[in-house]
Amino acid sequence: MKTVVSSATRTVVIGPDEPFVIIGERINPTNRKRLAEELRRFDFSRVRAEALTQVEAGARMLDVNAGIPGADEPGMLRGAVQAIMETVDAPIAIDSSTPEALEAALPAYRGKALVNSVTGEDEVLERLLPLVRKYGAAVIGIANDESGISKDPEVRLAVARKIVQRAADHGIPPEDVIIDPLCMPIGANHEFGRITYDTMRLVRQELGVNMSVGAGNVGFGLPDRPPLTAGFILLGMQVGLTASITNALEPEISRAILAGDLLLGRDPFGKKWNAHFRKSTAARSDARPAPGRATLVPPAPGN
Amino acid sequence: MKTVVSSATRTVVIGPDEPFVIIGERINPTNRKRLAEELRRFDFSRVRAEALTQVEAGARMLDVNAGIPGADEPGMLRGAVQAIMETVDAPIAIDSSTPEALEAALPAYRGKALVNSVTGEDEVLERLLPLVRKYGAAVIGIANDESGISKDPEVRLAVARKIVQRAADHGIPPEDVIIDPLCMPIGANHEFGRITYDTMRLVRQELGVNMSVGAGNVGFGLPDRPPLTAGFILLGMQVGLTASITNALEPEISRAILAGDLLLGRDPFGKKWNAHFRKSTAARSDARPAPGRATLVPPAPGN
Repeated sequence: MKTVVSSATRTVVIGPDEPFVIIGERINPTNRKRLAEELRRFDFSRVRAEALTQVEAGARMLDVNAGIPGADEPGMLRGAVQAIMETVDAPIAIDSSTPEALEAALPAYRGKALVNSVTGEDEVLERLLPLVRKYGAAVIGIANDESGISKDPEVRLAVARKIVQRAADHGIPPEDVIIDPLCMPIGANHEFGRITYDTMRLVRQELGVNMSVGAGNVGFGLPDRPPLTAGFILLGMQVGLTASITNALEPEISRAILAGDLLLGRDPFGKKWNAHFRKSTAARSDARPAPGRATLVPPAPGN
Repeated sequence: MKTVVSSATRTVVIGPDEPFVIIGERINPTNRKRLAEELRRFDFSRVRAEALTQVEAGARMLDVNAGIPGADEPGMLRGAVQAIMETVDAPIAIDSSTPEALEAALPAYRGKALVNSVTGEDEVLERLLPLVRKYGAAVIGIANDESGISKDPEVRLAVARKIVQRAADHGIPPEDVIIDPLCMPIGANHEFGRITYDTMRLVRQELGVNMSVGAGNVGFGLPDRPPLTAGFILLGMQVGLTASITNALEPEISRAILAGDLLLGRDPFGKKWNAHFRKSTAARSDARPAPGRATLVPPAPGN
């Protein structure tokens, strides 16, 4: 199944046979004081800068969140969406569960957006799905409901199924629903990874829809988090994970995803892998890339 | 299914619910001129040093190869095995397909060894399986035969099945056969990863035996190989790979495997992950580890 999102000028396809899609997580004022201050003043210069650097680092979509308690979320979200559209051509995941904010941002968006997110709670579904439908967007559905986050993969599957069905009731086809199977901090319970992967297997097998996960959370509370985030995504790629809201600026994460794409046959001729290497070599040496590295099969540089 | 190997004083269990087993690859004279020269002189000081550093870096078994054209492989292999046994307690994978070398090394080994390797070729099976049986060893069976390395996962499965059956005919139980599903350089054909993973799924589902792969080869000819080796192993861990002959000294590889174990629920309480972090921090700062990092859930250090 393929989920197609777009900006005015660029289409991104999410699917099991497509390259993995990084949705850049950084345009989010949570725990980012200066970004929050600027958003409150409707100053979007940092939003623009973050949009550019994330896309340059490999993000193919950008998440934008403007949820600051007590502030004008609709105005800020709309302004941020406009600023991003003026800066890059990556499609946007509009990150709000507030109808007023979505009603402000979605009409301003040119293309097919991704709404992030609904849960399986009846009240949330009935509040947000009509907006998703009205503006022809796709939507992320998180596999928890009124009863919370289950540790039982079958229960998470049931919530995912409910979201897909309820979306269909509102005229939203299954290919426009991306399930988030939920990632809880592995430091709190060493079974949390297995629960998420079992959920992914079930969702892929039973529903066949695409999946995305906010991966940064998995290492919460543990040291040396980038390899945990990277490893979490790679293990997910093998069982149906097709996208992730994550930090494209962390080289270990973006590089692991490129490696996964190459190893899973989604990077023919290693074109992206070689381009990444040339870019990172050029960045490191602050010089032109070495020409000897520009081809697919140069002599082995050791392992 | 569990494969149990041992030294005189240590047992290592390979299995889908066990921590992943790194088999250190470095005691091998191929492309290592000084190691080869020393082996020819029956000087095993470098073998001892490599044994120590690999075990310290996380290798739980050690591969030992003494195949130097025209040299006394039986004597060198036996000597190297003895040197390793005197230095570390990691079980050994005796890496030879020469009956004379195995006949020299296996009787000297104390514990249950792993013989690396047989292929599915009739002649090889009939030559080596009796020795594996005679010395009560386990064996790696590589999924190719007289017709070469197939690109069809079903054919590789058939070869693996033949090896398991032929081993049984010689009195070697399936839990003592570890299948190598074969890893070819992804730079030569971007389908090679998928072929290997499909083979792993089939072997796990149809035969249920453990699997090991020589992972260093996957990035041959490509730049920036360690993340490819690491990613290849992580993707494999999700579909039945339980061990790998690889370079434990490459931090990116050993760290990715630790992350995989943690994320797959094989590192309860993150004990090994935290130990790795303390060790690498101590190595970097050449100082005592920071006490604040010693517990499982300290404040999040950012991702």
